[in-house]
Amino acid sequence: MRTVEEHLQSVLAGVEPLSPLDVTLVDARGCVLAEDVTAPWPLPAFDNAQTDGYAVKASDLLAASDGKPVTLRVIDDVPAGYRASVEVREGSAIRVQTGAPLPEGAEAIVPMDWTDGGTAEVKVTRSIARGANVRRRGDDVPLGEVVCSRGTVLGPREIALLAAVGRGRVSVHPEPRVVIISIGSELVEPGMPLSPGLIADSNGVTIAAAVQEAGAIAYRVGPLPDDATTLLATLEDQLVRADMIVTTGGVSAGAYDTVKDVLSRLGTVEFTTVAMQPGMPQGHGTLGPDDTPIFTLPGNPVSAYVSFEVFVRPVIRRMLGHAQIYRPVVRAVLVDPLPSPAGRRQFARGHLAVEEGRYVVRPAGGQGSHMLGSLAQANALVVVPEDITEVKPGTAVAVLRLDQD
Amino acid sequence: MRTVEEHLQSVLAGVEPLSPLDVTLVDARGCVLAEDVTAPWPLPAFDNAQTDGYAVKASDLLAASDGKPVTLRVIDDVPAGYRASVEVREGSAIRVQTGAPLPEGAEAIVPMDWTDGGTAEVKVTRSIARGANVRRRGDDVPLGEVVCSRGTVLGPREIALLAAVGRGRVSVHPEPRVVIISIGSELVEPGMPLSPGLIADSNGVTIAAAVQEAGAIAYRVGPLPDDATTLLATLEDQLVRADMIVTTGGVSAGAYDTVKDVLSRLGTVEFTTVAMQPGMPQGHGTLGPDDTPIFTLPGNPVSAYVSFEVFVRPVIRRMLGHAQIYRPVVRAVLVDPLPSPAGRRQFARGHLAVEEGRYVVRPAGGQGSHMLGSLAQANALVVVPEDITEVKPGTAVAVLRLDQD
Repeated sequence: MRTVEEHLQSVLAGVEPLSPLDVTLVDARGCVLAEDVTAPWPLPAFDNAQTDGYAVKASDLLAASDGKPVTLRVIDDVPAGYRASVEVREGSAIRVQTGAPLPEGAEAIVPMDWTDGGTAEVKVTRSIARGANVRRRGDDVPLGEVVCSRGTVLGPREIALLAAVGRGRVSVHPEPRVVIISIGSELVEPGMPLSPGLIADSNGVTIAAAVQEAGAIAYRVGPLPDDATTLLATLEDQLVRADMIVTTGGVSAGAYDTVKDVLSRLGTVEFTTVAMQPGMPQGHGTLGPDDTPIFTLPGNPVSAYVSFEVFVRPVIRRMLGHAQIYRPVVRAVLVDPLPSPAGRRQFARGHLAVEEGRYVVRPAGGQGSHMLGSLAQANALVVVPEDITEVKPGTAVAVLRLDQD
Repeated sequence: MRTVEEHLQSVLAGVEPLSPLDVTLVDARGCVLAEDVTAPWPLPAFDNAQTDGYAVKASDLLAASDGKPVTLRVIDDVPAGYRASVEVREGSAIRVQTGAPLPEGAEAIVPMDWTDGGTAEVKVTRSIARGANVRRRGDDVPLGEVVCSRGTVLGPREIALLAAVGRGRVSVHPEPRVVIISIGSELVEPGMPLSPGLIADSNGVTIAAAVQEAGAIAYRVGPLPDDATTLLATLEDQLVRADMIVTTGGVSAGAYDTVKDVLSRLGTVEFTTVAMQPGMPQGHGTLGPDDTPIFTLPGNPVSAYVSFEVFVRPVIRRMLGHAQIYRPVVRAVLVDPLPSPAGRRQFARGHLAVEEGRYVVRPAGGQGSHMLGSLAQANALVVVPEDITEVKPGTAVAVLRLDQD
């Protein structure tokens, strides 16, 4: 029997971020940058007006006041996006819009509300310092600076800067395409009628949603019956589009072990037991010409979900290029007692909250691996070490947060 | 001049969650449930085997031990999804797969590894309690229980439960379709060549990414030149598909006020100044036959982004049906001094971190409203009240987190 760490190291071995792909900036949102982006020009790229107003010589306005406004001749009018056709000389001003290039000869921008807003002549009621209301070339970002480095997760603020330095596309690690196959003759697509003894396939939609939440693309296939021929054909079909395959179910001991039946003839999948609860039976390996990773998760819904969180999600996050591939773990005070199996690490469903400035966690309902009611109440997994069989209330425990990346 | 609160109340007035829409479970991920979902059957829906093994009468095994195994006749073999054809009687056992319905007459499931795994006869080496390894009908969720209530944000764990109670589709508040129009004759699509005096349109992609991050659908239009006819035609075109319109730029004082020019003839947009920095000039109202909300944000990139965060994002979150529409605000200790304008609430770019167990925040670089370099370094906005003109290092300040919902 493997430890959780041993199995985790085994499934992560050799996993690399997916090969970089050029995508548009908006499509890059949430992705990890695969290149260092440098500024091919400074920001701003040219001196420009910080406000709507008039470009002037500061020396013309030394004596300006409310009582004695100085009158300047307006010799041009420059919107943003255009350049002045003349230069500012003594006694003249050029009207400018915010963002317009600073006209030649101008020393400052007088804001509109220090003036009468005139178009042929303008009266200015205040003196002004040289450089006032001018954004200088390069005062935000110097030419050649690395504005976003490889490994950065791209959100709106990073995208703003990449756009400003002229990037329409960037190189990122793309989202892995994960094919999810649920297996079990008792499974029916959720929403379809159930005959006696059948149940709705919750694993397919649950793992698909968890894959999307991890930042990858989910393709659902199935539910498939417990039948080796069907599974084999499906795997061969799906390998073309998959960066990863995840199966759930089909791993019962004995006669109905469809997954082991098919995958012992194909690929490099190893079937192991991992010292954990839920989720003990685990399979992992690669398949097909591209060595596509495959995970075979147990069919009990809670076991499948917990196995996904503990083993599959870190692999997806690494394929996405994230440096931080694990969910955050916090210490919290356990409120209710929690029994735990000897020799296995327990991942108990729990609800984490902040009370009186500290984290507290409560086990969330029944811990049976078929119990989805308590899973839906949980926002965290309480991690109980292998050698502990009972955690008393008031004990500090490690808690894996399911609500944060 | 309005306060930030006054403008926020004004833009939120009358905003309701979008009308519910039926979507598939996977499409519902991240959405807010618009109905109470009750269990139309209990979970589990029938007594079933918790493990692979043999369904037995407990009374047959009272004397079973390693030294003296009890032999039972195996009278059927039931995979999950099927029902036994006979009932368990004294001296007999039925082999069952995990999840298979408990056969009539059976009192417990003997796990496979307490047996020799026989198919005609099975030797059992331990006694067993009645009810052992049986999942009882309803022990997870009773019939008729509300499993997910209106207002729940749907993640993988909620989707698992909804699937298990047989829902293939659920009613959620759909994502608003937000049309983003950037305006300014100086703007060029990022990645296209720039002539002197022109700049890349960063607002379009930034606000589009921020809209997506808020959970809505972004459609980018433009950049458009500062031209009333073009803007008018664009607005009329886009109204058909928009649940909200956001413009950036085109609001310079005086001659180039394209947005005010067009929207003073159309809709109910009010142009106001809000006592904040950045982001003072704000416009908001409704447009068209469906009273589509429209925001006219300033063109300075930082002003546009901060205005989006402070005013537009809460409106989007309310349209999505979220109860909690604001970003979390935490108290943090300011590390460096921060000057602030009198009479305006400042939203200064800052970098929030945890140091020695407490939140600390550092102003992130230059605070000019054109400075995207410091915006990309920020993960938070330091909120400085209107009456404060200087915050000293060591002061506790309110910090709006940009990295959490």
